[in-house]
Formats: sequence, structure tokens, C-alpha cells
Amino acid sequence: MPYNAKIKVTLRQSILDVQGKAVEHALKNLGYGTVDSARIGKYIEVSINETDRVEAERICNEICQKLLSNPVMENYAFELEQVN
Amino acid sequence: MPYNAKIKVTLRQSILDVQGKAVEHALKNLGYGTVDSARIGKYIEVSINETDRVEAERICNEICQKLLSNPVMENYAFELEQVN
Repeated sequence: MPYNAKIKVTLRQSILDVQGKAVEHALKNLGYGTVDSARIGKYIEVSINETDRVEAERICNEICQKLLSNPVMENYAFELEQVN
Repeated sequence: MPYNAKIKVTLRQSILDVQGKAVEHALKNLGYGTVDSARIGKYIEVSINETDRVEAERICNEICQKLLSNPVMENYAFELEQVN
């Protein structure tokens, strides 16, 4: 049974998130004064055709490091979910 | 206590995800033949300075509809988490 990987890629806390700042200001201007901070990242859904969970995890880690995130300035986290 | 909202914005299934297709092809070319499909969305973390959960939920729904997603072609989902 294949696995669905739900991957979140976020900017590291120390890196200035200009897109997030823009959203923050836009929300303030729209009257949402209670919104304090916004940070924007990527959300990626990948389907991995493997039956072995450990192998699916290894592949997911590899593709995150090689293609989906920039490890210098981004963090990633993922959840694996078996599809029936 | 403020709430952290973790928002996922994804393209509707019926809409062609060109960015996802590009990632899919790139992964195939890198040798990951078991990766079947990839879809790319946005992941947004927003901090809402409200003590009432219902009110925080209302604000989050509103900002998703007004600013963070395009309801014509995107879906959104969020989780609220109280911060200590």
C-alpha cells in the first residue's frame, strides 16, 4: 500500500520572512489588529509507492533534502500516512 | 493566551498543479521512480492574540477567505493551538 507524505517546509526562525511581513501588514491594514505574526512556508503532498514504512521515510527525507527544501535556510517536517 | 493557527492552502483537485508536475518530473529524473504524484500548496503560521477560541477560529476563517487563499481555486484547512 502506498504512503502519502505531507511535508511542511518553513523558513528558519533566524531568517527574515519578507512574504510573511507583507501578509502581517496587509492583515493589520484590513483591521485584524489581533494578528501578531505571520510566517509563510510551503506545503507539499507526495505519494510514495512503497510498502515499507522505513523505506518510504528514507525516500521522503532524501527528497526533502535534495529537492524540496534548502537546508541552509529552511526546515522541513513530514507526516507519513498509509493509503488504503 | 494567544492562539497559533497552522494553515494549509492547497489547490483544488480539479485544478492542474503545474508546479507539482514539475516537482514530479524532477523527482523521476533524480531516480525516485516510486514517487507517483506531487502537489504543492502554501503553509502559513499565524499568531492570533485572542483568549476566546471561537473568536480566534472566526478570525482565522475570515483571513483565509479574504487574504490567504483564493476560494475559487484553492481549499484551506487550519489547526488552532493555544500557546502558553
